[in-house]
Amino acid sequence: MSETSGVFRASGVVTLTTDFGLKDPFVGVLKGQVLMRFPEAQFVDLTHEIEAHWPAEAGFWLARSYRYFPAGTVHVAVVDPGVGSARAIAAVEAEGHAFLAPDNGLLAPLLESAQAPVSRRVADEVLRRIGVGAVSATFHGRDIFAPLAAELAAGRLAPADLGAVVDDLVPGWLDEPVVTGGQVTGSVVTIDHFGNLITNLEARHVRHLAAASVRVAGHEVPLRRTYTDVRPGEYLALVNSFGVIEIARAERSAAEGLGLARGAPVVVFTKRA
Amino acid sequence: MSETSGVFRASGVVTLTTDFGLKDPFVGVLKGQVLMRFPEAQFVDLTHEIEAHWPAEAGFWLARSYRYFPAGTVHVAVVDPGVGSARAIAAVEAEGHAFLAPDNGLLAPLLESAQAPVSRRVADEVLRRIGVGAVSATFHGRDIFAPLAAELAAGRLAPADLGAVVDDLVPGWLDEPVVTGGQVTGSVVTIDHFGNLITNLEARHVRHLAAASVRVAGHEVPLRRTYTDVRPGEYLALVNSFGVIEIARAERSAAEGLGLARGAPVVVFTKRA
Amino acid sequence: MSETSGVFRASGVVTLTTDFGLKDPFVGVLKGQVLMRFPEAQFVDLTHEIEAHWPAEAGFWLARSYRYFPAGTVHVAVVDPGVGSARAIAAVEAEGHAFLAPDNGLLAPLLESAQAPVSRRVADEVLRRIGVGAVSATFHGRDIFAPLAAELAAGRLAPADLGAVVDDLVPGWLDEPVVTGGQVTGSVVTIDHFGNLITNLEARHVRHLAAASVRVAGHEVPLRRTYTDVRPGEYLALVNSFGVIEIARAERSAAEGLGLARGAPVVVFTKRA
Repeated sequence: MSETSGVFRASGVVTLTTDFGLKDPFVGVLKGQVLMRFPEAQFVDLTHEIEAHWPAEAGFWLARSYRYFPAGTVHVAVVDPGVGSARAIAAVEAEGHAFLAPDNGLLAPLLESAQAPVSRRVADEVLRRIGVGAVSATFHGRDIFAPLAAELAAGRLAPADLGAVVDDLVPGWLDEPVVTGGQVTGSVVTIDHFGNLITNLEARHVRHLAAASVRVAGHEVPLRRTYTDVRPGEYLALVNSFGVIEIARAERSAAEGLGLARGAPVVVFTKRA
Repeated sequence: MSETSGVFRASGVVTLTTDFGLKDPFVGVLKGQVLMRFPEAQFVDLTHEIEAHWPAEAGFWLARSYRYFPAGTVHVAVVDPGVGSARAIAAVEAEGHAFLAPDNGLLAPLLESAQAPVSRRVADEVLRRIGVGAVSATFHGRDIFAPLAAELAAGRLAPADLGAVVDDLVPGWLDEPVVTGGQVTGSVVTIDHFGNLITNLEARHVRHLAAASVRVAGHEVPLRRTYTDVRPGEYLALVNSFGVIEIARAERSAAEGLGLARGAPVVVFTKRA
Repeated sequence: MSETSGVFRASGVVTLTTDFGLKDPFVGVLKGQVLMRFPEAQFVDLTHEIEAHWPAEAGFWLARSYRYFPAGTVHVAVVDPGVGSARAIAAVEAEGHAFLAPDNGLLAPLLESAQAPVSRRVADEVLRRIGVGAVSATFHGRDIFAPLAAELAAGRLAPADLGAVVDDLVPGWLDEPVVTGGQVTGSVVTIDHFGNLITNLEARHVRHLAAASVRVAGHEVPLRRTYTDVRPGEYLALVNSFGVIEIARAERSAAEGLGLARGAPVVVFTKRA
């Protein structure tokens, strides 16, 4: 492991990111299974409203959220269209945090942005050792991820105990932004609660562009600092609080106004004089 | 109490199952009232999205979820169309867990499936003794259930202190599955976040059927082990991770695809050669 | 400070009221930032489904909810259309509780109803002292409110440390009810999860009216004690469990039945013999 990456020392905090929704008891029973092994767990729900079966959104948010938690946090992300098949479980250690997810590309955004991440696949032998027995075919969040997270959060297992280091976790689902001379092209990754369009374009992608403007769905939108820099109802783009370009509409929903959804292309370009 | 049923020793964990939703502060103030009496409470939300005024769904999920929590957990379920009327409060102790709910049939699925459950109605005298005073006509979750749950979770009240043992709690809302020679008929109890149709048919109901198939809404659906046993978009039935038959559509919503809702009949039968 | 108002002694409990929704990781990372400074925080979500950009609803619920929490609770409310502009941060201490919100009128309902509230604006110097450094333009919940709440909840900052006492916080967004001889006119503030219409009319506004009835959207609705005082499907008004007049429909949604939304006028009047 690189010396720039802190060693994981369990803080007792467990974050959860899933596509389970809150309508059913799935998240609750996963927590129950953590508490069975580690009664002192401190849970934080990151979100359970990831688009069903779309690991890319979970990975996007997780990679941009983990640094706001104490070192020693265990981050569990379960968006798992392949549950019950032979897909492995991926474990990543980075900057003193531990991450568990299905090996389906979910953790790819983390691997791209974190400092000196170390990847492993969880060995079957580890599951046996911690007493993971009868596993259902459809709810590995409860039957495998919860026990693993509990043992990590309790400090009884270290990331290094989980398996051999690997460098071939399944790659991510999102194309990287395309940078050409005068412009950068990315896409809308998710639409937030306020109807803001969140893109995969980061501040570093547009830093070289003077007087940048953003083109989306035939509209040209100015790049500003914050929502109150335009009047209510007007569109703007900004580098948001997670460091990515977002298209917003002051006090309104940009997604509704523009009729746009996930996947729409977004171009940042230098406006000619 | 039967010797197969563990004695309740408070773990400090309190699960909550309601139809309150998350839009209003109802769940929050209920928790506040527990914390007033027991600051160390560890809450787990099972779900607050039970269909309004339908205790059967709450009872169904609770009976299939409690075993995933530590012994000593207090499970509070409030789905209470009769709030403010003279309906009693039911308390059940089973397998080392304690359960509180309106006496409206909500706990019936638990009584059917748990080992040696012991039922009580909470005596008015108990409420007076723990200082439950001015009670609103419309929010017993906050005014009665929260104080009771806090005293149980803190270990200051035992289930046996709540009232005399009874055997006539209000019966449940759901018909039991009908088993005839070659088939079993049940119904859709709830539709989960993924659009899977969850039925009241348990593995034991279909164990005697060879090469079983499922008929629902005019479709015949094969019984498989997990979602990846069919191709994306195809329908299947499976015994899900809570031990009941579920009709699913791989990576899609079966409920949308079939146009089905709660209550739809589901038949499992032996497919002739 | 008035002697009727208890001094704030931190209990470690932090409630959260926002319009962030639960779809994105915004609430989670706010909690992460509290845990960075105060790992023992006990969070309670009041609601994150406040109508976007409408502080009035947050203030309404908060003023009617805080008394159900232990003294020493820190209540954080972030509904903040002006984020990134020069608006200040308001801090109020009342009845042994501490409140933090944008200075945009959100806390006005609390100031109207609490005993001897003390208002302050948070001084920039305080933020520097606790190490609030790089602040985003769009997410003060995470970057400013979380650190402040953590320092208050940990007992390292007292409300009196936050700034000079002021009496000119931004006023509220809702008109007060109009009381004339024979009637009182208010409006629908919010619609709850069950479709009940929650008004800003309090019990004290109607106490002088004999045999009161309620007029809303052309309907006349009787004032009753609880939902079971009418038959399923019938409308009624009642003083609800938070002390305000609510228009309900037994076991149904009054909002759907009456086709009403937030802001609709509601009149309580004495029914002539």
